[in-house]
Amino acid sequence: MSQTLYVVKIGGNVIDNPEACARFLKAFAQLDAPQILVHGGGKVATQVAAKLQIETQMVDGRRITDKPMLDVVTMVYGGLVNKNLVAQLQAEGCNAIGLTGADGGIIRSVKRPVKTIDYGFVGDIEAVNGEQINAILSSGLTPIIAPLTYSAEGLLLNTNADTMASATAVAMSEAFEVNLIYCFEKKGVLSDPDDDDAVIAKLIPATYEEYKTTGAINKGMIPKLDNAFAALNSGVTQVTICHADELANAVSGGAGTAIVL
Amino acid sequence: MSQTLYVVKIGGNVIDNPEACARFLKAFAQLDAPQILVHGGGKVATQVAAKLQIETQMVDGRRITDKPMLDVVTMVYGGLVNKNLVAQLQAEGCNAIGLTGADGGIIRSVKRPVKTIDYGFVGDIEAVNGEQINAILSSGLTPIIAPLTYSAEGLLLNTNADTMASATAVAMSEAFEVNLIYCFEKKGVLSDPDDDDAVIAKLIPATYEEYKTTGAINKGMIPKLDNAFAALNSGVTQVTICHADELANAVSGGAGTAIVL
Repeated sequence: MSQTLYVVKIGGNVIDNPEACARFLKAFAQLDAPQILVHGGGKVATQVAAKLQIETQMVDGRRITDKPMLDVVTMVYGGLVNKNLVAQLQAEGCNAIGLTGADGGIIRSVKRPVKTIDYGFVGDIEAVNGEQINAILSSGLTPIIAPLTYSAEGLLLNTNADTMASATAVAMSEAFEVNLIYCFEKKGVLSDPDDDDAVIAKLIPATYEEYKTTGAINKGMIPKLDNAFAALNSGVTQVTICHADELANAVSGGAGTAIVL
Repeated sequence: MSQTLYVVKIGGNVIDNPEACARFLKAFAQLDAPQILVHGGGKVATQVAAKLQIETQMVDGRRITDKPMLDVVTMVYGGLVNKNLVAQLQAEGCNAIGLTGADGGIIRSVKRPVKTIDYGFVGDIEAVNGEQINAILSSGLTPIIAPLTYSAEGLLLNTNADTMASATAVAMSEAFEVNLIYCFEKKGVLSDPDDDDAVIAKLIPATYEEYKTTGAINKGMIPKLDNAFAALNSGVTQVTICHADELANAVSGGAGTAIVL
């Protein structure tokens, strides 16, 4: 049996709240096995863009990334957010190293082809270099991955953090028993979107389909869960969706929603 | 005899010029031994700060870094500049990894004590972790280091890139024959600051003192040369100051100014 590896995704809403983020980082630093963190962007990019008088355009909750906006997300996700997480983790005794997909060539993507909508400088993941990530882990480092990838032509590309987390988890499942954990501001997947305590303890595909039909599971939760099931189908051992404050309990199955095939 | 390692510093003026920067990166990618790049910041931080209506205060050519300015340099140096260098080097076939001093805990500093001037969030280097940098090199990666370090308390700190390059060169000299090369927009150290072709081929301490007395060497060149001589005195094998377009010639001693004890 291989060693456990935790691949943890932390959402932008937690990044935006310094106290919640500090609590989460303390728990993340104390995980008892090798770990990788993938972080979202948060609202800071929109705020910085507004101050720079760059208009934020969203289509179906996705950011249109023209060149000025690409510079903003490169600054905010790859610089401000990523490096502050790294410095805080170092102070917690975790030997963090901040990376984008370009660093070490770990996650390469292609610029999304224009169909009906031109998303601009947005990447669809093509390849995760699990061997390189493993070499970084082996030198005693904990990768902290920002939601940016790169193309073979040397372009940086804005990339969905949930997808980066699941693609990374799948690539690492060749060498590890991977436990993929999505942490965000709710207690798990809810059977009633208006009741924050209606946490589904265990979600299987059949139930997922039912909840989608009734509309209990909707919007942003659907791509997250599609990613989760895809990861399980591609070799990831365990997927959990939980509150950022419950990471320690969630790794032992004591909190959040377990996604199960 | 140990293996050669190139520690190359590239100045902000070159970073500011996309064509000059692309030529330099192509030459850097083709060096024939393990290499480390340390980059300056360039004018982009000042431009971004201006757009964000954050005032840039300089004292004796040094930036005062209050908290809003620290966020700007973290975004620009650690994000925008660093990640674009990494993505361009990846496209040149160089397996680059962008780092600040916080990443992997490679360069720790202390916040500069306030004497007559409060420089704000500026770091004075305390320790370079050469073993960790060596582990990163050994996993086939080329570190690209931004001019930011971190404190034991988890603060990010704005740090002089020339000093980071020389401190890194010194730390790596325990395991390598280190060739430290400062690349900038002039052909080398000049005996006449008004004649760009008056390159001093070889500069020894006695001549340096004379040129300082006559004023031929002055201003920003003095800390750079002090760093260079200090590096030689602390185990670095070779120090060269050259034009960014002449990196390939400079490594073989065919261009720039050789700094010699």
